[in-house]
Amino acid sequence: MARVDFWYEFASTYSYPAAMRIEPIAAVRGVEIAWRPFLLGPLFAEFGWRDSPFNIYPAKGRYMWRDMKRICDSLALPLERPRPFPQNSLLAARVAIVLGGEPRAAFSRAVFRAEFGEGATISDRAVMATLLHAIGADPEATLALAELDANKDRLRAECATAKALGLPGAPCLVSPDGEVFWGNDRLEQGLDWARSGSGSA
Amino acid sequence: MARVDFWYEFASTYSYPAAMRIEPIAAVRGVEIAWRPFLLGPLFAEFGWRDSPFNIYPAKGRYMWRDMKRICDSLALPLERPRPFPQNSLLAARVAIVLGGEPRAAFSRAVFRAEFGEGATISDRAVMATLLHAIGADPEATLALAELDANKDRLRAECATAKALGLPGAPCLVSPDGEVFWGNDRLEQGLDWARSGSGSA
Repeated sequence: MARVDFWYEFASTYSYPAAMRIEPIAAVRGVEIAWRPFLLGPLFAEFGWRDSPFNIYPAKGRYMWRDMKRICDSLALPLERPRPFPQNSLLAARVAIVLGGEPRAAFSRAVFRAEFGEGATISDRAVMATLLHAIGADPEATLALAELDANKDRLRAECATAKALGLPGAPCLVSPDGEVFWGNDRLEQGLDWARSGSGSA
Repeated sequence: MARVDFWYEFASTYSYPAAMRIEPIAAVRGVEIAWRPFLLGPLFAEFGWRDSPFNIYPAKGRYMWRDMKRICDSLALPLERPRPFPQNSLLAARVAIVLGGEPRAAFSRAVFRAEFGEGATISDRAVMATLLHAIGADPEATLALAELDANKDRLRAECATAKALGLPGAPCLVSPDGEVFWGNDRLEQGLDWARSGSGSA
């Protein structure tokens, strides 16, 4: 079965619609998704950014929020701007790393929906615990595993891999042959590439 | 007839495929295109950028060139990286402003094809003259008009309008109701919006 890596960041606005819609459009193409949470912070630090580019460059931020509204409307997804934006996504990313397979995907969708659909604060342990409970995971046990040094190291390694892959932002699809497709706009193209092994899909 | 403004910058890579494909996809939707050349420099200066973001942020630049190659391949367009990148687009923009209607569109496509299809230097008056001749315009007369103060002022006014519209980059479509659609990826969405007067196309 064809497979593609889906790299996403919980603080990233465009990762939200991408996470909510990727599984059905992958399923119809017969492509399996590997969910790869990472942090944009280390990449952005290399750009000299200590904040979201959507805050640093207000014209880009205004456009992004309007564009997100159109996208979410078209997908019948709620959109609620979290305060502050961006959210601190470190805890959510560590929790997602603990979880594997379908629980990771279900948790990730739950985080995005809470954050951008309801404006929830995802750095809050109680919020994480509620979402873990909702997907059938043990909240306290999972949070404890998330904060082990070994798990923190796994997330750091994922961030290093994202950097080595040259990801320019989030979300990204990366095919087995190393092609990178950046943005919610590029999901279909990336899935087609992964399915066919090239751009000739 | 529905109408949409197509804002583009001759130095902008993604403006190239957008300019080459917009007329047929607008025609099938019954949408008329107003070609609006402008300069990103004044917008980027507000961001603190004195160079292309694709040069300032190498990871974004590497991704963009690969993405452009895929896009141009899919459209059967040649892609040749101009040196230096970005090109100085001031003269080309002034010439485009002199021309109206279909000659402006034809000249603009010719500039993009020479620059990104053949790697031509678009700040070169001789290159501009050749392209003007090819579209049936008088090269010397047009270049003389382009460099009149009144024409320079017209281009400055267009840049001020682009800034007032909040354009985050180029290319952009702007519908009569003020909706902005940024990127070659958004042409279809912007045309559909302009045709229907909303996102319900």
